[in-house]
Formats: sequence, structure tokens, C-alpha cells
Amino acid sequence: MGKDTEIRRYPDRGRYDTGTINRILDEGTICHASFSIEGVPYNIPMLHVRIGSALFIHMSTESRIYRTLKEGAEACITVTLLDGIVLAKSAYSTSLNYRSAMLFGKLGPVTDQREKMMIAEALLEKVARGRWNDCRHPSEAELKVTAFLKMPIEVFSAKVRAGPPGEKDIDLKLPYWSGVIPLSTVRGKPVTSEIDSGRIRIPQYLATELE
Amino acid sequence: MGKDTEIRRYPDRGRYDTGTINRILDEGTICHASFSIEGVPYNIPMLHVRIGSALFIHMSTESRIYRTLKEGAEACITVTLLDGIVLAKSAYSTSLNYRSAMLFGKLGPVTDQREKMMIAEALLEKVARGRWNDCRHPSEAELKVTAFLKMPIEVFSAKVRAGPPGEKDIDLKLPYWSGVIPLSTVRGKPVTSEIDSGRIRIPQYLATELE
Repeated sequence: MGKDTEIRRYPDRGRYDTGTINRILDEGTICHASFSIEGVPYNIPMLHVRIGSALFIHMSTESRIYRTLKEGAEACITVTLLDGIVLAKSAYSTSLNYRSAMLFGKLGPVTDQREKMMIAEALLEKVARGRWNDCRHPSEAELKVTAFLKMPIEVFSAKVRAGPPGEKDIDLKLPYWSGVIPLSTVRGKPVTSEIDSGRIRIPQYLATELE
Repeated sequence: MGKDTEIRRYPDRGRYDTGTINRILDEGTICHASFSIEGVPYNIPMLHVRIGSALFIHMSTESRIYRTLKEGAEACITVTLLDGIVLAKSAYSTSLNYRSAMLFGKLGPVTDQREKMMIAEALLEKVARGRWNDCRHPSEAELKVTAFLKMPIEVFSAKVRAGPPGEKDIDLKLPYWSGVIPLSTVRGKPVTSEIDSGRIRIPQYLATELE
């Protein structure tokens, strides 16, 4: 396959199964897509959605990135979820708990309008489940200028670190506290647009996002 | 400078001032660093810290990445903060609120041991303020195998989207709710390691992280 996806540093953190990759891709709201344009690396945050064994990223057909990537550029797409700050008794053993998925491959454009509509729905449902049935769907003209690029989930690796700090033996008895500060991304109470304020209530499918 | 950092899509979202860039770099816990090895793009999540007008990323001197990058590879480092899901009345106008900073340049190794100690302190203080004075500092041997790469903050751009949805005029009267679901990264209650449980209390500088 040409790419070397073996995790060499901390090989016990390497994961190569589709289940782990898919869960990371599905939980992440954005990915970082990287590629070269005339030898210069670019690294751009983008919305993504996984459908089956392919990942789709979203941009405008008018963007320079799209014009470059649709020609089949090599790309690396990474999704990272940060789960905690791992404080060991030594600065050296300090770490992060995280889950990251890295995909390698060529991106290809999606041209079929029905497929694009399906991806638009999947993308919207991923960021706000229930929303597709409560919005105006894309018109033909809008769909035309909406670009999706597809990357097959074939060459990939994931890295996962979880759990408490790994201490060196010499540090175990030190008087410094050790443990993990959990990190998570949370959704706040939806803020209604001024144009809808006092006129349209927050829909139930969004209200259930609240803790 | 060779790199083209002009934001063409939504040019009103472009930011080119050091203040905006620095705030994004300082608030983000991790960056995504991308570069090519033998023509294949890689995109890797890493801890970073800004000191003055330079960004430092952290890895092991034993890693293949370090061996490649320390030779002065071209890289693009991106830090992205996700602030909200922007639900417009149309699927087409749906967006994200975010702040992203993108740096371009060559990475160079930090070899001075005193400088490495200073970066190690800044990095630890960034993830847990107050921690440096409550842990074992790196030994000379540990510092030797700790690699930091430096990128000057010279060629960069930022992109910022904030505020309510931008609706098309034809959509303004549609009956669908529109607004923003705020997103934020929060720190949970620190979880003490088993070896310290019932023995060492959560220190005050970490307790203040709690809401």
C-alpha cells in the first residue's frame, strides 16, 4: 500500500481495527486534512462524516483546495479526541489521554447529485441529530456548488492512550499527587437567533442535547 | 515568504494579526502538525506551547518523525478551537463557529539543555498551571531524550467564525428554528491514581480547575 501505518513509538497504543477507527471518526466533529500544494504542506480543519467504509469531507466547489484535491491528491486526514491530561509525579512521564485516527489515501470528488444529497443529510445529522427533517434541504443549485471529497477507509491507524499515569519505579513514592484531569467537549444550551427569538421554540431534538 | 496565507473563501473570516494567532495557540491544548515523508503527507496530533514569537512541539528524540523533521522539513501546524454548531434554516447555510490558526515554516531542533528545560516548564504549566512546582523536574538524561522542535511564528493566518447563522433572504421567514449550539472543552474533577488514593489530596492548583 505504500504507506507505513505501523505505530512504532508506544506500539501498545496502536490500533488497526475498523471498529476503533470508525468510533473515533464518528465521535469527532471535525478532522484536520493535510496535503501538499506545490510542495507546501497545508493542514485544514474540516467537517467530515463517515458513511460505511468511506470518509467524506466538505468544502465549496469554488475553493482553491477543492480544485487541487479533486485531481486525486494524496492526503492524510486525522481526527483526534482529547480525553484527559495525565499528570505523573515527574514532568517527564506527563502525558495525554487521547484517541486519534489517521487515514491515508487519495481524495476523489463526489459528482452524483443523489449521493451528494445523501452525504449532506448524513453530515447534518452527525452534528445535530434530528435536524434534517427540520430544515430546508439543499436546492439543486446549492448542491451543485457543494463539494464533497471521498477517501476510502483502507490505509489507516489509530492511537489510543487511556488510564492513569505510567510512573517510573523511582518516582512511585514521591509526595506529588498523580492522576488524570478528564477533558470532554460539551454542548451548551442552544442560543436562538434574534430573528426567531420569542417566535420559534428550541426544538425537542436539540433540547435533549442538554444535560 | 513563498506561502500563500491569504484567506480567499469568506475573506471576512481571515485574521492576520499576532494577537489573534497567539490567543488561539495558547488556548488550544494540542495542534496538528503536518509534513511529508517521501511524498506521503502525515498529520499528527501533538502537544505544543508558544513562547514569545515561536511555537514548540514536543516528541521523543527516538521517534521517526523527529529524525525526519529535525532536518528542517517544511511543515504546517494548525490549532483549531471549536466554539459552536451554527444551525441555519437551510442545510446549505449550516456552519461552525471556530477559531483556527495555521503556521507555515521549517521546524528546527532545540539543542540547548537550558532552553529545553524552559520549554518543558512552559508546556507543563500550559496544561496544568501550578504543576511545575509540584512534580519531579526532568533529569539530564530525560531532557536528552526529550525532543522539541521550534517553528517561528512568521508565516501564518487565522480564520474565525463567530455569531449567529447567516441566512439567505429567501429563508428568513421559514418556520425552522435557527441558532447556535455552543461547544466547549471542559475539565472534569481530577481522578487520583490508585497509588495515591487516600494518601495524597488533589492539590489546590488543580482543584481550582473545577467549576
